[in-house]
Amino acid sequence: MTAFLDRCRAIVGAARMPDNVLDAPAAMAPYLRDWRGRFTGSARAVLRPGSVDEVAQLVRLCAQERVPIVPQGGNTGLVLGSVPDASGDAVVLSVARLNRIRALDPVNRTVTVDAGAILQHVQEAAAAAGCLFPLSLAAEGSCTIGGNLATNAGGTGVLRYGNTRELCLGLEVVTPQGEIWSGLRGLRKDNTGYDLRDLYIGAEGTLGIITGAVMKLYPAPRASITALAALASPDHALRLLSLMQDRAGASLTGFELMSAFCLGLVAKHFPQLPRPFAATYPYYALLEISSSESEAHAVALLEGATSAAFDAGIVLDAAVAASVAQSRALWQLREHIPLAQAADGKNIKHDISLPVSSIARFIAHTEPLLQQAFPGFQLVCFGHLGDGNLHFNVAPPPGIGNEAFLANQAAVNRVVHDAVDAFGGSISAEHGIGALKRDELARYKSPVELNLMRAIKAALDPLGIMNPGKIL
Amino acid sequence: MTAFLDRCRAIVGAARMPDNVLDAPAAMAPYLRDWRGRFTGSARAVLRPGSVDEVAQLVRLCAQERVPIVPQGGNTGLVLGSVPDASGDAVVLSVARLNRIRALDPVNRTVTVDAGAILQHVQEAAAAAGCLFPLSLAAEGSCTIGGNLATNAGGTGVLRYGNTRELCLGLEVVTPQGEIWSGLRGLRKDNTGYDLRDLYIGAEGTLGIITGAVMKLYPAPRASITALAALASPDHALRLLSLMQDRAGASLTGFELMSAFCLGLVAKHFPQLPRPFAATYPYYALLEISSSESEAHAVALLEGATSAAFDAGIVLDAAVAASVAQSRALWQLREHIPLAQAADGKNIKHDISLPVSSIARFIAHTEPLLQQAFPGFQLVCFGHLGDGNLHFNVAPPPGIGNEAFLANQAAVNRVVHDAVDAFGGSISAEHGIGALKRDELARYKSPVELNLMRAIKAALDPLGIMNPGKIL
Repeated sequence: MTAFLDRCRAIVGAARMPDNVLDAPAAMAPYLRDWRGRFTGSARAVLRPGSVDEVAQLVRLCAQERVPIVPQGGNTGLVLGSVPDASGDAVVLSVARLNRIRALDPVNRTVTVDAGAILQHVQEAAAAAGCLFPLSLAAEGSCTIGGNLATNAGGTGVLRYGNTRELCLGLEVVTPQGEIWSGLRGLRKDNTGYDLRDLYIGAEGTLGIITGAVMKLYPAPRASITALAALASPDHALRLLSLMQDRAGASLTGFELMSAFCLGLVAKHFPQLPRPFAATYPYYALLEISSSESEAHAVALLEGATSAAFDAGIVLDAAVAASVAQSRALWQLREHIPLAQAADGKNIKHDISLPVSSIARFIAHTEPLLQQAFPGFQLVCFGHLGDGNLHFNVAPPPGIGNEAFLANQAAVNRVVHDAVDAFGGSISAEHGIGALKRDELARYKSPVELNLMRAIKAALDPLGIMNPGKIL
Repeated sequence: MTAFLDRCRAIVGAARMPDNVLDAPAAMAPYLRDWRGRFTGSARAVLRPGSVDEVAQLVRLCAQERVPIVPQGGNTGLVLGSVPDASGDAVVLSVARLNRIRALDPVNRTVTVDAGAILQHVQEAAAAAGCLFPLSLAAEGSCTIGGNLATNAGGTGVLRYGNTRELCLGLEVVTPQGEIWSGLRGLRKDNTGYDLRDLYIGAEGTLGIITGAVMKLYPAPRASITALAALASPDHALRLLSLMQDRAGASLTGFELMSAFCLGLVAKHFPQLPRPFAATYPYYALLEISSSESEAHAVALLEGATSAAFDAGIVLDAAVAASVAQSRALWQLREHIPLAQAADGKNIKHDISLPVSSIARFIAHTEPLLQQAFPGFQLVCFGHLGDGNLHFNVAPPPGIGNEAFLANQAAVNRVVHDAVDAFGGSISAEHGIGALKRDELARYKSPVELNLMRAIKAALDPLGIMNPGKIL
């Protein structure tokens, strides 16, 4: 072990920077604990290489010694994908020191970044060049582009701009053999062989270590304006979505669904936030229109569409923001749902997606099943309706203890995931599989698909050293 | 051989449909000849299964007998990807009879199709439901969705809607072992393991046979309006592109570059088409703005942007269409370039892409190199500038015979592809590799990338029966 760590230190220049091969428990702790604080793994050491070449050298050494490698970015994942298991066999390879914005090309509308670049820094670099990098999610101040790519992160920009996968043009990857694949192409069209890029994206570090990427930029819209619509049901939300898409096309940049229970939680825990309606309605949709022309254009488009929806009997009431500032206030209602949930107690979370057209039927089917099986449990239903992505969470009835409530987790998961499967949905829309959902994956994927994945894993990582125990 | 064909006939029901296992030379001929008529291969037979299950049975039989399979859709490819080699060992497996639109979901905005569905039929089915299927290319009346997916086809809609890859949500594939992978998911977000979908897309039938797909639909724009802008240089075209993207965002749905030589060819061979300008300018850009609001909105947006470009000295002159009908007439100038080229004689074609920001420098670098090496040869430079995709073709000087001209093909390719490589571009933007560019691929890809591709090929098709000799 000591000899191995000495060789690691020789690679990452420990003489100058002794903190780049960490093996003291206190120093390793933040790298071993998962983001939600529910699991802490064990490792031989945490390696913090300072260059792509050092990553490659470390991987070659690990391959030689058969040491498993857990790649890690900001360690903000929700499915135990970036922490090692309890065995203590693995090393954590953190890309945190690879954090440069390598280049930004405003005419090609691309930014080339190290994998360890913090998402917010990439957003800021784009904004400074008059561009938009549209990937945006709650952890953006801590998460890294490498982690976003490894998990194909979603977030609030997906409706218009797609997932992280759709924002990536090229990758640089260190293979499990310690070779460097330089695929940092900034091309919108390239049909020269197999799509290796998309194979590494979403593979959660099990096929290699992403060390750099070319990401797409977009022109920044002139203004984004939101409205809150009150709705009788999820079915009305779907009709509103269709109407908005027909009238606004790509200018519709957000469409979020929230149940009355969700906004009730927000009102309870954050009473200072606005309450746009005097009455309570079963469901709400938060709509966002962005215009490349002007704020006035965005407001007019949104007002016209919500009026038409009101006239058609699709919405019961609507509050349209009159400015960008008012729009931010409406977004806060949506953004505070997870915070209000956390303030209210433990939750059993599901990150699911469905065909958009099935969502109303899915909710109508699944909510009664849950109520029947778990009397008094509360459904906390909200999410990115335009993407078919629901955070279909379950909260305890008043008075039940956390432990007694969480004892139902597997049974609640089974009801929800079986329903998701029956409706042709996905048990992981934007969080990935990691170690947490590995058994669920094996349960719901076909043997043909699992065997194809295993064949690819065996072909690219025959020693099985890359993030073992994750996904497969 | 006879026993093998008898077993094929037993699978595809030859008793009723004797024309579904073709082995007569005349019957096979259209399946063996490539689209441009430059090569004719040989095959044991052409198999025309009528169901996915028949495809799977045929593949199992071929795997057992080690018979190579060349999957074929509309056979409109330009790189010899869908025709067999001259050995006569292979069978052609045509998916032409799998041509149903299986389902269309206007709320989920998806259409589920058989691989053999003709692209134009899919467009028409979408239009009948009030939606847009934005994939559009010259061969759309003959090519199939399966072929579009296998080659990740591009076309004129890429700037706004992406390549075929970006339009696909789910696939059904028959593996080289004759198993059926049912991945027909209609989900915008799904992070459950490796991205098999994108691995099959663009693999040109070398990893399996695509038999079905779920494709994205979009709201149909209310109107699309075009303008023709006269420009001093490709650099001015890039400045115009940036300006248009900033002002129009996703409403910019087309940006095509054409040199004076291109429009001169069109004027020569199609004198009935409009000539928007009295003078001749070095370059032209065709711009298209689409609006989900109204024709008037599209016209106003386009007029505002072209005026601003004129005031900024970026364009020398501009003609904005006043209606959808005038817009179609301007598009015809662009669409007639390949026809005018063909009418004028043989061409040496290049389907290349570059970082958008490098295009002006690439042309300025490469055009003199060609003129120096091949005095009198004419550059026919046009393409999808917004995608970084140029059709950078070379026409003969007057008076030279076809044979003498085409003798320079390899040398001309070398000059162009070396320059593409030096500028970080791709030697195949939207046509693929097939058998035609296999040697070029091996020349320009890194050994690391080639080895990764070979590892994937060996893992998924260990017998090497799927479309051998293509790509790798």
